[in-house]
Amino acid sequence: MSDYLLEEATLSSGAIYRLFSGSVCPRPIAWVSTLDSDGNANLAPFSFFNVMSVAPPVLGFSPLLDGEGQPKDTIRNLEQVGECVIHISGEGLVEEMNATSAGLPHHEDEFALAGLEKLPMPGVSVPRVAGAPVAFGCKLREIIRFGDQPLAGNLVLAEVVSIHVDDAVWNGRHVSIDALRPIGRMAGNDYARTSDLFVVERPASGGTPR
Amino acid sequence: MSDYLLEEATLSSGAIYRLFSGSVCPRPIAWVSTLDSDGNANLAPFSFFNVMSVAPPVLGFSPLLDGEGQPKDTIRNLEQVGECVIHISGEGLVEEMNATSAGLPHHEDEFALAGLEKLPMPGVSVPRVAGAPVAFGCKLREIIRFGDQPLAGNLVLAEVVSIHVDDAVWNGRHVSIDALRPIGRMAGNDYARTSDLFVVERPASGGTPR
Repeated sequence: MSDYLLEEATLSSGAIYRLFSGSVCPRPIAWVSTLDSDGNANLAPFSFFNVMSVAPPVLGFSPLLDGEGQPKDTIRNLEQVGECVIHISGEGLVEEMNATSAGLPHHEDEFALAGLEKLPMPGVSVPRVAGAPVAFGCKLREIIRFGDQPLAGNLVLAEVVSIHVDDAVWNGRHVSIDALRPIGRMAGNDYARTSDLFVVERPASGGTPR
Repeated sequence: MSDYLLEEATLSSGAIYRLFSGSVCPRPIAWVSTLDSDGNANLAPFSFFNVMSVAPPVLGFSPLLDGEGQPKDTIRNLEQVGECVIHISGEGLVEEMNATSAGLPHHEDEFALAGLEKLPMPGVSVPRVAGAPVAFGCKLREIIRFGDQPLAGNLVLAEVVSIHVDDAVWNGRHVSIDALRPIGRMAGNDYARTSDLFVVERPASGGTPR
């Protein structure tokens, strides 16, 4: 067993990144479209992502600063146009989603690169991916910066103002895992399917959502 | 296809909860120990959880207010003693982890309920679960409240000050999925194993971590 006290700086940021990405998993994936002030679209996946609140409905994702300590286009666009669409792709669009993780020059459009059609999203000016089964139209609440070092997080707190969902995925009450085929992000280039499910009954006294 | 504009209030909070928990998945699970000011321990799992930043290392999890709009013991304890240990359990401790999701009276100890041994965690006063393969000792940075309605989030931003990890899980560079057997949270009582992995090579130009 190994124990590390970080004030003694025994682990590099790269090592912490690998330990986080390998152990805090499987991670859901936010596939996020944004616009800059000239109307250029951006689309990119982020797996430091989850639900932050249900009432009000708030999602959060945290793009890291790159190796030079610079913010990604998604953050720069959100500072210009404070709206985004957070899509859940499922396995059906994983190749397209991966294609949009390329580090394109700022004004190039990942929708075009990945051969994806845009459609309007209710409630926001940012377009959604036509084929994505679930999409949340969001208005920016806040970006929480954790510093200016490489790998510093930039937590985007985005309030959901509109929802698009395929009827095959959502019957108004339950999400169909068979229709959505959710995938999780692991370390490196690994993804996990959610095909191997099991049930653990909650204790009778623990009825409130976590 | 269904589209909802939330200002028209066509979806209840319960429906949004079910749509979030069924589509924002698989979710990693934070198994969190805390202490109240009298030294009583609490232990509970939360799946609205992810990495928020690597440098500085910050994890975030968001317990929801319960159906009466009241905070969970974890939040009340963090207000008294601003430290926690966030464990990653893997499949090996899923039954014990589930047992700690019971809504016990405030002063009862979920470690004892689930038959779990406590051990000291470097850097913090809060004990860790002896058998958990990965544990992050954390100091509270901030709790971001999203309101006082039932199901409002309470995002805990916790800076990692110490790390405990089994040598079978972490060789100093990579996490062994076979040793950790990470599990993800789905909707309802469902969990997903990460046994069904696949690889998608990143585009050559997209080398920075997301």
